[in-house]
Formats: sequence, structure tokens, C-alpha cells
Amino acid sequence: MSEATHTTPISQLGEFALIDHITQKFSLQNSSSTHGVGDDAAVITPTTGKQLVVTTDLMAEGIHFDLMYTPLKHLGYKAVVVNISDIYAMNAEPKQITVSLALSSKFTVEAVEELYEGIRLACKNYKVDLVGGDTTSSYSGLVVSITAIGEVAPEELVYRSGAQVGDLICVTGDLGAAYLGLQILEREKRIYLEHPDVQPELEKSQYLIERQLKPEARKDVIRFLKDNDLKPTAMLDVSDGLSSDVMHICKMSKVGCVITEATVPVSEPAYQTALEFNIDPITCALSGGEDYELLFTIRPEDETKLNGEDTFSVIGEITDTLQGTRLLTKGGNYHQLTAQGWKHF
Amino acid sequence: MSEATHTTPISQLGEFALIDHITQKFSLQNSSSTHGVGDDAAVITPTTGKQLVVTTDLMAEGIHFDLMYTPLKHLGYKAVVVNISDIYAMNAEPKQITVSLALSSKFTVEAVEELYEGIRLACKNYKVDLVGGDTTSSYSGLVVSITAIGEVAPEELVYRSGAQVGDLICVTGDLGAAYLGLQILEREKRIYLEHPDVQPELEKSQYLIERQLKPEARKDVIRFLKDNDLKPTAMLDVSDGLSSDVMHICKMSKVGCVITEATVPVSEPAYQTALEFNIDPITCALSGGEDYELLFTIRPEDETKLNGEDTFSVIGEITDTLQGTRLLTKGGNYHQLTAQGWKHF
Repeated sequence: MSEATHTTPISQLGEFALIDHITQKFSLQNSSSTHGVGDDAAVITPTTGKQLVVTTDLMAEGIHFDLMYTPLKHLGYKAVVVNISDIYAMNAEPKQITVSLALSSKFTVEAVEELYEGIRLACKNYKVDLVGGDTTSSYSGLVVSITAIGEVAPEELVYRSGAQVGDLICVTGDLGAAYLGLQILEREKRIYLEHPDVQPELEKSQYLIERQLKPEARKDVIRFLKDNDLKPTAMLDVSDGLSSDVMHICKMSKVGCVITEATVPVSEPAYQTALEFNIDPITCALSGGEDYELLFTIRPEDETKLNGEDTFSVIGEITDTLQGTRLLTKGGNYHQLTAQGWKHF
Repeated sequence: MSEATHTTPISQLGEFALIDHITQKFSLQNSSSTHGVGDDAAVITPTTGKQLVVTTDLMAEGIHFDLMYTPLKHLGYKAVVVNISDIYAMNAEPKQITVSLALSSKFTVEAVEELYEGIRLACKNYKVDLVGGDTTSSYSGLVVSITAIGEVAPEELVYRSGAQVGDLICVTGDLGAAYLGLQILEREKRIYLEHPDVQPELEKSQYLIERQLKPEARKDVIRFLKDNDLKPTAMLDVSDGLSSDVMHICKMSKVGCVITEATVPVSEPAYQTALEFNIDPITCALSGGEDYELLFTIRPEDETKLNGEDTFSVIGEITDTLQGTRLLTKGGNYHQLTAQGWKHF
């Protein structure tokens, strides 16, 4: 809310005017988006022969974000990206989103505009249309609930359930950075609360903080896979952490796996910062979550199609289910992977 | 939570087990629901030639419901119905929903089961599939965010924007009852808080309370319209109140209207209870909202197709825009209608 010189209470504008005010900045860009905001429902005309994929994610203040260090524009951007990432994880193209907000009375019209500015930017970057939503007040914090819809040819669809024994396990980018970005932000918040006059030193942590506050979905990877005629046997996006997520694939595919610790990609800033926080870097990669990288399995003969691109790391192999879901450590030992869901309850 | 003899903290079960536990009670019933819960996204195979309609509604504790007098099962049911009602308002058939929940730590596994029992019942009654969702914790109250998807042939679709001068304005059922049901529940809550030993007398108000706590969407009306080859020129569902909602049609259709007070349907219990509360019954119908009846316009020559069915009331006429949006009172005077959005901010 940095540039907000005016502050207009939402009550001054009213519900309908607020919605008009915000949605006029959005225009429809996909041919399948027949009718957007303004009626009881949006209308989508699916491309003949395509299937639709639908996903939804809800982010609640205090649980998924802290407004003390999360700019509203980044929050809006991220709330769209985490949904779109799920659409890509089905090997589909995102096309539409709906956005529901619950806003406490502390929010001004300008704050809502900031949030929607981030949503608009994500829609533009990922070529997605905002076609509907619901905006209500809340006695508690901010809640952002987004549903994303995508399109895919039936033969392109990739589920979590298709991994087979012998398949290679691949992951894009690097892991653990978003988690470490969060640790830095939490540390700076504590310092600020104790010593409000100390300036935070965030520059050297910029990469990690950006991974936390403004993640991107791997649109480029989906295009690469298509261009290189490479269809994964199973895929998902890394939202819970590598460990939980590889276990989702194993459970749905009824297989086991072995992940080789030495091959799990961790960036240099993540590695250094993990040590600074006295955490094992591999733990950040395995349990951190929110990386929004793609985790997928391929037939071994398809490995050459990765073209040696350095965004891909082959980090393990699918085994039979009897062998469980294991990590082969740098020291040569096998550990069972453990899943973590919410840390919140 | 009446029958809950066990209380299991959600933390005991964990996120993934909770989702498995709840979704196993749901099965897919529509042929277009290709893949439901369990992957990054659900998969829908649209019927060839059909369009999809998408709507979303968010309900927040303290704003849209008070858990002191709202059974969780009813809440789950209503949260589905208000979305499905929007699908019918497009003259479409609801097919799928996604459900996102933010739950504070006071919720037990049994409470979540109660909520989903209502969702399941609504899915069964309206032949809709639960295909996805997101369940997270919340530091504040309960938030239920639902997205519904429906299907419609392009030529059947009815927007808000098609009303023309001379069209008749029709509404189904009766109006104002849900608002009065809420007033009764609020009154009983105040009495209970002051005198916890006084038993509430809710029997004679049963109709009104049910309209508030467990509304139904007018599936029967959509079928009637189809069976009688009657396509409205514009339609929406009465969620904000007749006044706001008829003004939505007028704004989108660029027309005016006159509503005849004497013809606005108010049930006998609503009428009596309004007087008891010293409110003009027509005010409840105009501004109460949450009736989830269908408000639509038809060409005058189509009036005979209503077959004199007593669920339909012809309550006014579309005029040109210069005449504004007016109410013709029982006393023969004209008043401007006024819109109300949120009462919450």
C-alpha cells in the first residue's frame, strides 16, 4: 500500500460500485471466455474435443501469508500463480479464474486495488481471464479463494497415477528456496518488532524472498515438454514439499521410489541460508514446500528429450511398492521419506 | 453437532487423511465428471456443443452465518444451494462443485463431517458432483468458498441483459421469508443470551427459519420452463433482494421497470411476522434477500405458457430507461426503487 495517498473506505463506494470499478480493468483475452463478470455465472465455450481441468486454492491471512511483510500486489499475484501451477501440473493450459475475497473492514478501496493489480498482472503474464468472483466482508482476516480452469487435449492429460517401475523422477528448477525466504521474512519481522529502527538487510536474500512472495508457475516447462514431444507418465507441482509430493505420486501410481539426495537441486543462496539457520539444506528441499516447481516421472528412454537442459534434474527412480518411498543419503544410507501436511492445526 | 459423541481433533487425523476420509463418501454421478478429487485438478469432459457456466460464492462466519443457530449440516447444504441457484439462473444444469474450507482449530473431525454431510445431501438432491477443493486452517472463523460449474446449450442460455420494453416481470415462490427467518433467529439468540433457561418457540416460525437456514434452488422451475418451451428474456436469482435484483436486470438490459406492490408475493407467515417486528412486509420482499427464487422477464405473449401455475407471480413490466426503476404502491403512488449491496462494511 506504499503509494496509496488516498484511502477510501469500501463502505463509501459500496459493493456493486467496487466490483464495477475493479473489473473494468480486466478484459477477456481467450476465445473460450464467452462471458465474464457481470451475470449470475460466467460462460465458457470449450474448444471442441478438449477437456477442462478445474482446481481451487484458498489462502487465509495468518496461515498462508502475513500482511506485515507481504505486499498485497504480490499476494494477488501469488494467489493466481499457485492455482495456475496446478493446471500446468495436469499438462493443461490455464484459461480462466474466479476470485473470491473476504475482506475485513481495515481494507480500503486502494488496498483492494493493489491486490487486484497483482491478480491482473498474473492474468496478463499467464494469459488467463478473470471471469467471476465474489467479494464479501469478513470479521476476521483476509481470505483469497481462487478457482482456475484450464483446457487440455485428452491425450495430453497427465495424472499423478501414471508412474511405472523404472521411470525416472525429474524436478524443475531448485527446491527449498521459498521456505528459506519465509524464514528470512519471519526473522526480519521479529527484529523489526523488537527494534523498529533497524533497517532490514534483505538484498542478499532477494532470490529467496522472491521465491516466497512472488513465485512463478512453470509455463515454460509445459511448453518445453510439448515442443520436445515428451509426455510425463505422472506429474504434480511441488507445493507441500518434495517428500510429500513424491509420496502423492507413489500412492496414486501404486509404486515406490528412491530419491538420491545428492541430485536434489538446491540453489547456492538456499544452501548458504539453510546453514545460517542451522537447518540441513536437504530438509528445506524435502519438507519446505511452496516451490511450485514441477515434479514428474518419465520413461527412461525419454531422458534424452530433456536435452541436457539445466532446469531439469533427474533425482531418483520409481521402484516397486514393496521398497517403500526412500531417500538415498549422501552418506549412502536409505531413509524412509515422511509426508507433512498442514503444520497449522 | 448434536449426535457427536466422539470429538477428534483434526490434528490427530492430519490433512491428507481428513480429505481421504471425507471424499470417500462422495461418488461421481455425472458423465461429464471424468476425474474428481485426488489430483492437482479435476477433469471435466464437456458434452459436445454445450457451453459451461461457472459461478462462485463465499460464506464467512459472522457475516453470512452465525454458528450459534446454524447447524453445520444446514450450512453445508445452503453453501451448495446458493451456488447452484446461480447456475439455474443462467437456465443451465449444475454438474460439478469444488469446495474450499478455512477451519479454525475449534473444529473437530466430527464437525467437518457434519458440514460435508450437508454438502453431500445437496449434491445428491441436485445431482451435482464434488470434484475438488482445498481445506486449510484459519486463525479466524469458518469460511466456505464454493465454485459451481453447469452445462447449457448455447441457445438455452439466459443472461441478465435480454429484457425488452413491454416484457412482463415474473418471480417464483414468495419473497421476504428468509430475511424474517433471520430476524427470528437473531431475536431468539438475544433472548437465549439473556435468559438461557427460556425455551425458544420456533414451531410457528418453522417455514421462515427453514427459508433462512435451508433454502432450495428452483430446479423445478427450470424444468417447467423447458417443458413449456418458455425461454425468459432475462433471469437471475433473488439473492440481494427484489429491489437490487430487478435493478441488475434493468441496468444490464438498459431498460426501466415498474413493480406493482400489490402483486409481489409474500407468504402469510412472512406477512404476519413482519407486522410483529414492525416492518412493512413489502420492505422485507424488496430488500430482504436470500430468497433464492428466480426473477425473470418474458415476452407478454408467453404469459399463457405460465399455465396459471401458482408458483409464478407477474409483478411488473419492463419500461424504457427514461422512466427509471419504480414501485407502484398499493396507494397508487410511484417510488424509486433503491439498491442495497452489502450491509456489512
